[in-house]
Amino acid sequence: MVVVTQKRSGMKKVVIGLSGGMDSATLLGYLLDQGAEVHCCSFNYGSKHNKWELEAAESIIDYYIERDFPIYWHKYDIEQMFRKASSALLTSGGEIPEGHYKADSMKQTVVPGRNLIFASIMASLAGALSAEEIALGVHAGDHYIYPDCRPEFIKALDQVIFLSSDKTVQVTTPFVYKTKADILLVGYRLNPSVPYPMTRTCYKDQEFACGKCGSCVERLEAFAEHGLDDPINYETK
Amino acid sequence: MVVVTQKRSGMKKVVIGLSGGMDSATLLGYLLDQGAEVHCCSFNYGSKHNKWELEAAESIIDYYIERDFPIYWHKYDIEQMFRKASSALLTSGGEIPEGHYKADSMKQTVVPGRNLIFASIMASLAGALSAEEIALGVHAGDHYIYPDCRPEFIKALDQVIFLSSDKTVQVTTPFVYKTKADILLVGYRLNPSVPYPMTRTCYKDQEFACGKCGSCVERLEAFAEHGLDDPINYETK
Repeated sequence: MVVVTQKRSGMKKVVIGLSGGMDSATLLGYLLDQGAEVHCCSFNYGSKHNKWELEAAESIIDYYIERDFPIYWHKYDIEQMFRKASSALLTSGGEIPEGHYKADSMKQTVVPGRNLIFASIMASLAGALSAEEIALGVHAGDHYIYPDCRPEFIKALDQVIFLSSDKTVQVTTPFVYKTKADILLVGYRLNPSVPYPMTRTCYKDQEFACGKCGSCVERLEAFAEHGLDDPINYETK
Repeated sequence: MVVVTQKRSGMKKVVIGLSGGMDSATLLGYLLDQGAEVHCCSFNYGSKHNKWELEAAESIIDYYIERDFPIYWHKYDIEQMFRKASSALLTSGGEIPEGHYKADSMKQTVVPGRNLIFASIMASLAGALSAEEIALGVHAGDHYIYPDCRPEFIKALDQVIFLSSDKTVQVTTPFVYKTKADILLVGYRLNPSVPYPMTRTCYKDQEFACGKCGSCVERLEAFAEHGLDDPINYETK
């Protein structure tokens, strides 16, 4: 499905990855607030929480469409790319580990080369649409576990995409040095606020967030840091 | 289809892109000759000549399997990724231009970000298989037209894949400074020789090669440079 709203001329076009989580939802709100026309890419890559993520992404897209923002949605089914991969994040993998993000067990959730594939598809779309920028919602909390979220990876990604596109497309990551708590503050200060009740963070394949996986723990900590109550439903809190 | 032959322990595993053309067929023969276990990735990406390329790739795979080489085939259907792209190479695009590779008209055959997507998928597979290397058959003749075949792109690609894979996967391009004529010589000197009669180079959607598109012209020049007769069938020569 590709959602098309009114095209406004002269706007900066940006292609982003929209997972349906807090960080990418904030990235979307942040770029729309800056007056960009945003092309959101969402991926079905065979993760346990993919169904819930995509539902969240769709709700977020609808939220901004209802407010007449210039936003397009591009969905890709790339499950086949990870058929040989072993990761607890995938439906083919073991149990999602519980506990803090920094725990060694969370390394089981790495999907080899995932973000490079996502970004490559986004860069190709940017080339096709004559967009000059792709933006990613990676943040500081991801660095410990995921090699493809670290600043040195992002720098190399920017370089390879710049050269691949004959020097027309750049990569931006406005949150790469921010914590999830910082990102939350960005999103709440926007008008309209980022629709956090619609976002999906939990790695598990269940309707209500588990509150125990590394991803949930980090989210809950971000809300707690600001003395806020997380507006989504949890199985346990 | 994944073809599995006898696994030999202690071999270097390499993931390559096998288009079915001369360069990637030579790369395959070259790596097998070096004693590598080779995982070949072929892509249906919606090009006009895709059907013919994939048939060629399958014949080349079979040629080496019959000779008991350690070789695997991984096919990916990624047509959806280029649904917004404009390129004469794609079934959705205009006529394939004729004439020499260096002609400006050949720029119409660029598919935005294609090689970065191919390489990203290959790098992810390498991570999943614990292979330490991906190899690409890009060569000097590609540089003028295709930004994603130039040495500076390859250097950046190596860097981004190295970091994405937590420093486990590297990119090699043994032919990046060779001409197509040089590559031909590599392939003919191997034992067994690279099966050039099985390779497919033409960009057009027709059984016999056209002999007129930039890709055919470059191939014919490579054979002519060595005083060799190209063993494939041409519509015109």
